[in-house]
Amino acid sequence: MKYLRFPVAAIAAIVSLVAFSAPAPGHADGAPAPFVTEIPNGYRNWQWVSSAHEAGNLNSLGAVLGNDIAIKAYREQKLPFPDGSIIAALHYRYVPSDENNKVFGKVQSFVPGAPTNIQFMVKDSTKFAATGGWGFGHFQDGKPADANFMKPCFPCHQKAKDTDLVFTRYAP
Amino acid sequence: MKYLRFPVAAIAAIVSLVAFSAPAPGHADGAPAPFVTEIPNGYRNWQWVSSAHEAGNLNSLGAVLGNDIAIKAYREQKLPFPDGSIIAALHYRYVPSDENNKVFGKVQSFVPGAPTNIQFMVKDSTKFAATGGWGFGHFQDGKPADANFMKPCFPCHQKAKDTDLVFTRYAP
Repeated sequence: MKYLRFPVAAIAAIVSLVAFSAPAPGHADGAPAPFVTEIPNGYRNWQWVSSAHEAGNLNSLGAVLGNDIAIKAYREQKLPFPDGSIIAALHYRYVPSDENNKVFGKVQSFVPGAPTNIQFMVKDSTKFAATGGWGFGHFQDGKPADANFMKPCFPCHQKAKDTDLVFTRYAP
Repeated sequence: MKYLRFPVAAIAAIVSLVAFSAPAPGHADGAPAPFVTEIPNGYRNWQWVSSAHEAGNLNSLGAVLGNDIAIKAYREQKLPFPDGSIIAALHYRYVPSDENNKVFGKVQSFVPGAPTNIQFMVKDSTKFAATGGWGFGHFQDGKPADANFMKPCFPCHQKAKDTDLVFTRYAP
């Protein structure tokens, strides 16, 4: 699963600076990147949408959080998500908790280990019109992935077109 | 893992009503229950602390959320948690996501299924002095567990005495 992000409330203030800033990844020609290149402010304070364990090679345990606009849309079951929605997926290694397992007396408790990556989906039907209105973002150690890495996000998320390209369901 | 709750900001307003309300579970003698008997308001809007998968018989996937006081203490790594802290553990069946697995082409994605229970830890060093300053709560279908069910909570959580009886760590 892949998600995107956006400089939320600061967009207006930032717009005038964009022309003067160094090109973000994917800006080979100076045009805006077709994906998300900056981590949105305050995402760690957003509300919880759901958790997920991805087994196999991903070996990931994480949470999906949403900003206020996304959470409202989730709760009202409104599709498509309105512009301004941002969904964040925080991923960690899936590891046993030695502390908890001592208490249980067996290996049964698995918790987030080292952070692996953070992904975002940012809804902006104008800016990201070419990718279903969503900008996708992937960050490792705070740095955005490059254009090549981001290419499969949109085609894969199109498989969730019945839910506006969003895989994660809201946990009640 | 077990957790507790409390009518947070409404405590002062509620105190005067307690003597007149029907006894909550565990109030055989009219005394306050030594555990949490009401679901705290707004817990679903609290910030995310961490996720966990409990395998084995529990077969649970869930999230731990904290109210503002608890989250602040977590982030500042302040122990013990101050009075007013509430930690919520939302539990669901651990189930494969057929939708996601179709996309992956294999069974590797596990998500929250039906809700099973919600547990709370409510810090009130006076009210819950007998159980380490924490009141524990367990709710299934909105109803609190009885006194007998709640008995093992405190002895088990004492195994986490180095972290003020709290098992769950904050995921960065």
